[in-house]
Amino acid sequence: MSKTFETLPGTLDAVWQRLARGVADRRAPARHPVLATAGQNGGAAARVVVLRAADRANARIEVHTDTASGKIAEVTADPACALVVWDPRAQVQIRLTATASILSGADAAGRWARIPEGARTNYGGAPAPGTPLADPAEHRPGATFDRFAVLDLRIDAIETLHLGRDRHRRARFERADGFAGRWIAP
Amino acid sequence: MSKTFETLPGTLDAVWQRLARGVADRRAPARHPVLATAGQNGGAAARVVVLRAADRANARIEVHTDTASGKIAEVTADPACALVVWDPRAQVQIRLTATASILSGADAAGRWARIPEGARTNYGGAPAPGTPLADPAEHRPGATFDRFAVLDLRIDAIETLHLGRDRHRRARFERADGFAGRWIAP
Repeated sequence: MSKTFETLPGTLDAVWQRLARGVADRRAPARHPVLATAGQNGGAAARVVVLRAADRANARIEVHTDTASGKIAEVTADPACALVVWDPRAQVQIRLTATASILSGADAAGRWARIPEGARTNYGGAPAPGTPLADPAEHRPGATFDRFAVLDLRIDAIETLHLGRDRHRRARFERADGFAGRWIAP
Repeated sequence: MSKTFETLPGTLDAVWQRLARGVADRRAPARHPVLATAGQNGGAAARVVVLRAADRANARIEVHTDTASGKIAEVTADPACALVVWDPRAQVQIRLTATASILSGADAAGRWARIPEGARTNYGGAPAPGTPLADPAEHRPGATFDRFAVLDLRIDAIETLHLGRDRHRRARFERADGFAGRWIAP
């Protein structure tokens, strides 16, 4: 563990190990990244998401959402977004810069088929997300394929910050050079 | 605990209790919110920050940073930002929308005086954050008062999402009406 973050290749391996663990393990820190998007009236919006896939070969990750959610409107307006994972045990922060594509309908049917029925009720509740309610009980969860969307996130850059005992190490890896990586000042 | 999120006042109390705990307790979930800002080239930027103060009476929170950090450039260009805390034990997400003001120099001297000497080395390292390094050891931490900045975050809205056993409850509280709060669809 202690040597992991002392080299650029070790650091990049550690990032992808954590993302893979986030997909597989509900308790892993990378299970629940924060996804930040450009706000629709300026500024930024951010919320916790659930990591559903991590593909190192293509440097893509995946999140599922309701087509009526604010984040779909936000990435439609501006697909550039950011994700953050903080792993307190390893004392490492992972920051991803990504470009989002939205898959729905036929393009998302394969994913929908693999979602357990109970979990499908996250997509399609009524009324739509954000609608005022007199009481929370007015909301009815729904399972509606037409409201299911995959956010396919192409990673453009990965930044890590490791808070080491001897020093802090910050690294940046970019798609443009095949994620070769370089050290930068923390 | 189970009844806490069933009422709007209980929910708002729970938010401020968690923010206060984040200031006091290094292990509390609200110790390390993610701060999202508008990206300088569009999109969004996000990173973990350390919560340093929470003032319910004025609905303000505080974070400390290096004046040379990216987030200072970002909130200078657009002060509208967002913060997220996820409390896994309570199964509650707290989302804050805030407007940032930057305090430095004489306006930040009182805070600087209360920071232990060892912790001051987070402000003023050389070279500046983000500068390429051949090796992490090239970076020299520094304690430089002129590089210390307080991000004073005026909270404009608070949104909570509680994943309850019976149902999910989402609430929104806005400064405009004194944080009276209302339920909205999750």
